[in-house]
Amino acid sequence: MSAMPSVSNSITVRLELPGRATAVSELTTAVERSGGLITALDITSSDNARLSIDVTAAARDGGHADELVAAMGAVEGVHINKVSDRTFLAHLGGKLKIESKVPIRNRDDLSMIYTPGVARVCMAIAEKPEDARRLTIKRNTIAVVTDGTAVLGLGDIGPLAALPVMEGKAALFKRFADIDAFPICLDTKDSDEIVRTVKAIAPAFAGINLEDISAPRCFEIEKRLREELDIPVFHDDQHGTAIVALAALRNALRVVNKDLSEVRVVQSGAGAAGTAITRLLVRAGARDVVISDINGIVTADREDVCDGNHPDLQWIAEHTNPRHVVGTLKDALKDADVFIGVSAPNLLTGDDIATMAHDSIVFALANPEPEVDPNEAAQHATVVATGRSDFANQINNVLVFPGVFRGLLDAQATDVTDAVMLAAAEALANVVTRDELNPAYIVPSVFHADVAKDVAAAVVEAIRLEQEEAQATSPASS
Amino acid sequence: MSAMPSVSNSITVRLELPGRATAVSELTTAVERSGGLITALDITSSDNARLSIDVTAAARDGGHADELVAAMGAVEGVHINKVSDRTFLAHLGGKLKIESKVPIRNRDDLSMIYTPGVARVCMAIAEKPEDARRLTIKRNTIAVVTDGTAVLGLGDIGPLAALPVMEGKAALFKRFADIDAFPICLDTKDSDEIVRTVKAIAPAFAGINLEDISAPRCFEIEKRLREELDIPVFHDDQHGTAIVALAALRNALRVVNKDLSEVRVVQSGAGAAGTAITRLLVRAGARDVVISDINGIVTADREDVCDGNHPDLQWIAEHTNPRHVVGTLKDALKDADVFIGVSAPNLLTGDDIATMAHDSIVFALANPEPEVDPNEAAQHATVVATGRSDFANQINNVLVFPGVFRGLLDAQATDVTDAVMLAAAEALANVVTRDELNPAYIVPSVFHADVAKDVAAAVVEAIRLEQEEAQATSPASS
Repeated sequence: MSAMPSVSNSITVRLELPGRATAVSELTTAVERSGGLITALDITSSDNARLSIDVTAAARDGGHADELVAAMGAVEGVHINKVSDRTFLAHLGGKLKIESKVPIRNRDDLSMIYTPGVARVCMAIAEKPEDARRLTIKRNTIAVVTDGTAVLGLGDIGPLAALPVMEGKAALFKRFADIDAFPICLDTKDSDEIVRTVKAIAPAFAGINLEDISAPRCFEIEKRLREELDIPVFHDDQHGTAIVALAALRNALRVVNKDLSEVRVVQSGAGAAGTAITRLLVRAGARDVVISDINGIVTADREDVCDGNHPDLQWIAEHTNPRHVVGTLKDALKDADVFIGVSAPNLLTGDDIATMAHDSIVFALANPEPEVDPNEAAQHATVVATGRSDFANQINNVLVFPGVFRGLLDAQATDVTDAVMLAAAEALANVVTRDELNPAYIVPSVFHADVAKDVAAAVVEAIRLEQEEAQATSPASS
Repeated sequence: MSAMPSVSNSITVRLELPGRATAVSELTTAVERSGGLITALDITSSDNARLSIDVTAAARDGGHADELVAAMGAVEGVHINKVSDRTFLAHLGGKLKIESKVPIRNRDDLSMIYTPGVARVCMAIAEKPEDARRLTIKRNTIAVVTDGTAVLGLGDIGPLAALPVMEGKAALFKRFADIDAFPICLDTKDSDEIVRTVKAIAPAFAGINLEDISAPRCFEIEKRLREELDIPVFHDDQHGTAIVALAALRNALRVVNKDLSEVRVVQSGAGAAGTAITRLLVRAGARDVVISDINGIVTADREDVCDGNHPDLQWIAEHTNPRHVVGTLKDALKDADVFIGVSAPNLLTGDDIATMAHDSIVFALANPEPEVDPNEAAQHATVVATGRSDFANQINNVLVFPGVFRGLLDAQATDVTDAVMLAAAEALANVVTRDELNPAYIVPSVFHADVAKDVAAAVVEAIRLEQEEAQATSPASS
C-alpha cells in the first residue's frame, strides 16, 4: 500500500509565471508528473506579461511537498513567492475560542453577570448544588483529558504536543453534538497524580473524556475515576472504539446473515481498544472469542496473565477461548468467521484470510497501516473494514463519542454503563437502514445527520430504563 | 446607607390587567410606593377588555422583589402570570461557550484539523515546544483558578458555587481584552494539592489568574506557583486591586497636588488585597505608610507578626511605620493625607475623617459596605473612592486584569514583575487626561475604550525593557 497524496499534506504555493499560452499546463503537468494532486488553481492577479497564481496541491508527505515545490520552480520563467502548509494554516492560533454567551454592553449587564448580581446565583448553588447544572456551564461542558503518552500513532509525545489533538477532539464535540469541551493536558504520567488532578478540577464539568493515555495505566485511571467521581468517565480509545466496532460488526453480520452468538471471533491486540472491544463483544452475546497479543493467544496459564499484575488479561482469559485454541494468531484464524485487529501493521496476508470460514469479516483497524492489506483481504473476505478514510467502511470513533456524551449530558448521567454502550452501538448500527446495507456500507458517514442524534437518544433511553429498574428494585420502593 | 433598588435584583413580571384607563398608572404607583424602580413596561398583547404587560422592576433584594410582586398583585383586577428573575435568566445554562475556530464541513476539513493531518502539527510541537504558542490555544488562553474559599463577600462557598463568578470573570476577559479564559474550580483547599493541580494542568495555558482564594493560603500558593511555573501567575484579589488602587491614588494625588513620596498613608486591612497594596505602594515610592489590621497597627513586636508564621505581616512591619506610630487606626489617621480601607464595614465616621490633614484622600474599598459612609467622608475629604458602582470613583479590578493579561500574552511573558505592575498602574492613571481629571473622576469608566489597550501596551513595554536590561547584564552578552 503506497501512500496516496492527501489533503492533510496539502500546500498552497503562490507563484508568478510568464503569460505564455502553455505556462499553466506546463505547471500542472510538472506537479502531476511528480505525483502531486492539484486541488485548486486561483489566479490572484494578471498583467500582459505575467500571471500570479495560488496553486493548491496535495502531497504524500512533507518531503514530497518539497519535491512538488521544486518541480513548480523548475518550470521556465516561474518565480515562487510563498509556500503555505494548509494544515499548519488551519492550526494557527489554535482551533478553539471561548465566548461569552451574555452581552456586556453597560453597567447594568455587568451588575447582573458579575458583582453584585452574581452573588445571588452563587448562593442559590451553595444551597442547592444540583442547580449548577441549570445555572452554570456544567450543564454542557466536559473535559478532554490526556497525559500525552499514547497520542495517535505517535506514542509518548507529552501533554503540550498532544494539545492539537485534544483541541481537534473538542472541535468535533462541538460540531457533531453541540458540546462545550475543553482540553486538559496533564504534565504528569503518574496515575495517582492524574486521578487526583482530574478529581480536583471536576466541579465545573459534567463529564470526563479520557484520551490517548497509554495502557495499562489507562485502565486503572479510568476505573478509579469512575468509582470516585459522580460524573461519567469515558475513555474514548477504549469505549468509543468498542462501540463503533460492535456497531459495525452487527451490520457486517447482517450482511453475511450470521449471528453474533454463533460466530467464531479472533481478535489481535489486547491493549486499551482490544480489551474494551472484547468486553463489549462478550456483553453483547459473543460466545466464541479468541484473543491474541504479542505473546500469543491469551490463556489463563500464560505467565503474564496469571502473575496478578494484569487483571484485564486475566478477565480476558476467563471469558474467552472456550474451545481452548492454542498456537499462533494464524492458527486461531483458521475457520474463524470474524477477524478484528487492533494491534500492529501487516501481521497477515491474503492467504491467511483465505483460511477463514466462508463469508468472513475482516476489521483491520491498526492505523495508518492495517493488520492486512484491505485490498488483499477483500479477495477472500465478504466484508472488510479499516480505520482509514481512504477505504470503504471506516471504523471511526467520531461516529460514537459526540452522540454518547450528548446523551449522557441530556440525561445528567453519573456514569457510563455497559447497557449505555450496548444501546449506543445498536443505535449507530441502525442508522444504516436495511435497504442501504451492503458489504461496503456497514457504518454511516460521520457527516450523516442522524448519527449523533440517534446515538444520544438511545443513551438517554438506556439510562431512563436503568433508573426505572433501580427504583423498582430499591428497598425504599417496596 | 440604605440599599437602593438595583438592576442586579430586577424582576420581569408578566401580568394581565383590566383595560380601564387608570390601570397602568395604578400599577406603576403601587410599585413605586413599595420602593421599587420600574425600568421597562412592555405590552405584549391587548384586547378590548384586558392588557398583557411585562413589567421590569429593580428591587433592593430578594425579599423586596417578593413585596413588589405582591403590590402588583394587589392592584384591582391584576392577574400575575409569571415572575422571572433577570439575573437568574442571564445565568441559565452558564455564561460561556466553547467554539471551534475552524470549519468542519467535509472529510478534507476533518483530515486537516484531526487525523491524520494533526499529527504533523503535534510532531512540530514535540520538536519545538515554543511553537505551541503559535499552533495551539496556548497563544491566547488562561485559566481562572479558584478553590471557592473567599468568593466575593460570601466567604467559603465551595468550588461549584464559585463557578458563576469565574464564568463572569472569563466573560470579562473576553469582552475587554479578547482573551480566552476558562474557569478551573478546584475541589480541594489544600495548598500543596492546589499547587500540584495547577502545575499539572498548566501546559495548555499561557497564564494563571488566581481568584477568590482565602488568605494566608493565597500568598503561599501564588509564591510557589510563580517559582515553579514558566507562565505568569497573577492573583487578581491581590495584584489587580493593588494596581487599580495605585492608579487611582496617583490621580487623586494629582488632584490635591501632593507627592506620593511625601504623603502619610494609613491603611486598614492586611489581608490579600491589603498586603499587595502596601507592597506596591512601597515599590512606587511611598515612604510613610501605616498599616492597621484587626489586631491594631502592624509592628514588629506584635506576637502574631514575629511568630514566624506570617512572613507577609513581617514584611509589612519591616517596610512600614517609620514614625513608629502606636495605638489604634483612629490614632494613626490623625493628620494622615491618605486613608485606604480594604477591611470591614463602618470602622470610621465622618468625624474620624475630619482629623486627617487638609485635602485628604479616602479610599473606602470594603464591599458592599465601605469602611466609612462615602457621603459622610466627602464632607471632610477632597477625594473619596469606593468599590461600589453607585458612587463616583469606583476602584474596580475590571480596569486592570484584562489589560494586564493582554500585555502578558502579547509579550509571551513568563512572570509578572513589580515593574510590570507599576507600569500598568501608571498607564491606567494616564487614561484620565489632565483636562478630565477632577475629584469625582480619578479612574476611567470600565467601558472606556483605551483602558485595556493602554494597560496592555505598558505591560508589553515594561517586559521589553526588563528583557533588554537582563540581556545587557547577562554574562553571555559580555
